[in-house]
Amino acid sequence: MGDRAMPKFAEKTLTRAGGKLTQIICDVSDGHAVREVFERFRPDRVVHAAVITAGDEREFREFERVVDVNVKGTANVLQSALNTLADKVIYVSSGSAYGNTLFAGAQLLEESPMVPDSLYSITKHASERICARFRHARNLNVTCVRLGSVFGPWERDTGVRDTLSLPMQILQRALCGEEIRLPAQEPKRDWIYSRDVARGLATVLEAPSLRHEVYNLGSGYKWCNVAADWSARLRAVAPGLRARATEAGEQPNVVFFGGRDRAMMGIYRLTSETGFKPRFDQKDALADYAAWVRENQDYFQFEQCGAT
Amino acid sequence: MGDRAMPKFAEKTLTRAGGKLTQIICDVSDGHAVREVFERFRPDRVVHAAVITAGDEREFREFERVVDVNVKGTANVLQSALNTLADKVIYVSSGSAYGNTLFAGAQLLEESPMVPDSLYSITKHASERICARFRHARNLNVTCVRLGSVFGPWERDTGVRDTLSLPMQILQRALCGEEIRLPAQEPKRDWIYSRDVARGLATVLEAPSLRHEVYNLGSGYKWCNVAADWSARLRAVAPGLRARATEAGEQPNVVFFGGRDRAMMGIYRLTSETGFKPRFDQKDALADYAAWVRENQDYFQFEQCGAT
Repeated sequence: MGDRAMPKFAEKTLTRAGGKLTQIICDVSDGHAVREVFERFRPDRVVHAAVITAGDEREFREFERVVDVNVKGTANVLQSALNTLADKVIYVSSGSAYGNTLFAGAQLLEESPMVPDSLYSITKHASERICARFRHARNLNVTCVRLGSVFGPWERDTGVRDTLSLPMQILQRALCGEEIRLPAQEPKRDWIYSRDVARGLATVLEAPSLRHEVYNLGSGYKWCNVAADWSARLRAVAPGLRARATEAGEQPNVVFFGGRDRAMMGIYRLTSETGFKPRFDQKDALADYAAWVRENQDYFQFEQCGAT
Repeated sequence: MGDRAMPKFAEKTLTRAGGKLTQIICDVSDGHAVREVFERFRPDRVVHAAVITAGDEREFREFERVVDVNVKGTANVLQSALNTLADKVIYVSSGSAYGNTLFAGAQLLEESPMVPDSLYSITKHASERICARFRHARNLNVTCVRLGSVFGPWERDTGVRDTLSLPMQILQRALCGEEIRLPAQEPKRDWIYSRDVARGLATVLEAPSLRHEVYNLGSGYKWCNVAADWSARLRAVAPGLRARATEAGEQPNVVFFGGRDRAMMGIYRLTSETGFKPRFDQKDALADYAAWVRENQDYFQFEQCGAT
């Protein structure tokens, strides 16, 4: 289960993109350690994404640890960014911060009411409010960006996200030669490709000025039958891949974080203020990801088969 | 600054009311300690009110401690109540959980949107959502009760509430013979007398069934000129009491938690479901409290004068 350090293969590939990459492994819930990292690097810009995406079982088992990382971690990063005079901070929030509202109505705007449900949701929402507090009481330039359902290159099991993305679960089973049992009805999601997420975050980070404190970042539309579509594309990489829909009484062996259909996050605010729009629709994203998987098979050597 | 143990005088008086009173001092953020207390007493009914009511300064200085007590503390109590099969738990929440909404509009209902602002507000809101989580995912019978601005008998400085109630601040200064400088404009509040709070909590605790998970508990109307009214009544206890409104450029020496006017919390839900209504209006509450102060002057021996 998971390793926090970036795999060597990823490190090599990312370094080839130019620039300088320094990897520090630091527990964000350790205020002293966070302070040291900030004092050493004095970053101008900070993207804070560290979190435990706890599932139902872990949230009660590791309640304190989840609060430490997800809530105190946010405050530690913001306080250190404040101390070392960072110009700009992004807090990577989540559609999950909406909580129950995610499952009501068709579209969510940033002002939609938030009714956090799971501990993950509660801690993401609390962190957003902590950002607002640092912004108003301490004048810290921090913006919250709520991500939709993300998938794409470099996803892997680090041990802090209990449910990986649907495409990644399918990929894991395909690489292990296991039959994939898909849910008969696939919950609808406004999936967003990780390359678009990266570009969206960069857009927010580089925007000379922003009129709001919170932005949704999704693809802006609901995708259809992602599991079947992705399974078909993966056959180019794993020719023996077997995927089928479950029959009556049978359990799927891939799951959706949060289960049911979710409302779509509207990205009108981000688009109208910054001109950002996603480049990858379902077809392009899945094709790009399949090509990436084919070209980067060494990355998946760490996958352990037979674990489940 | 403050002592956690109940003063002997209070203990004696409360014991005279009949029943059995056992005082255990326990840090709610210590999950192990909370578990031990619950396993020893196996309470049927639990009222969880432990919290740090941090002011603006303390919230940034003691961020981690506030999160530990206010968020983890709630989860520890709920988990222990679950383990020892408590019948009913009340989480004593606060109007502060509404956050910014408290300062918008005339009345707040339980469904009003919540936009937590300060760390205190954020942790109270997060705790309410943790209660909802334990209720839905673990079937724990827990009800949240949001208190308005409370004052009355037995208030004292325990060191965990940075701003005591307005009547208590005035009382402290009166007992120390200090001149009281009242704000020229008194922020409007739906104050509630502590005896009504106790009765309201008991009503919720004893209700055979409740239709909702959250109830407002306030007096249901806004009080006027509480500071001047209370100062006048206190003269019966402290004849030398001097109180006056501040002049231009002068700072008052009593303060309001949260500053500005607050919206009134509607108590229609509690009243319609349980028949509860407050017994004390402004006049009766202040008269009762003044009489109580007169009869219980020994209680105030612990007040330290000259500290501010």
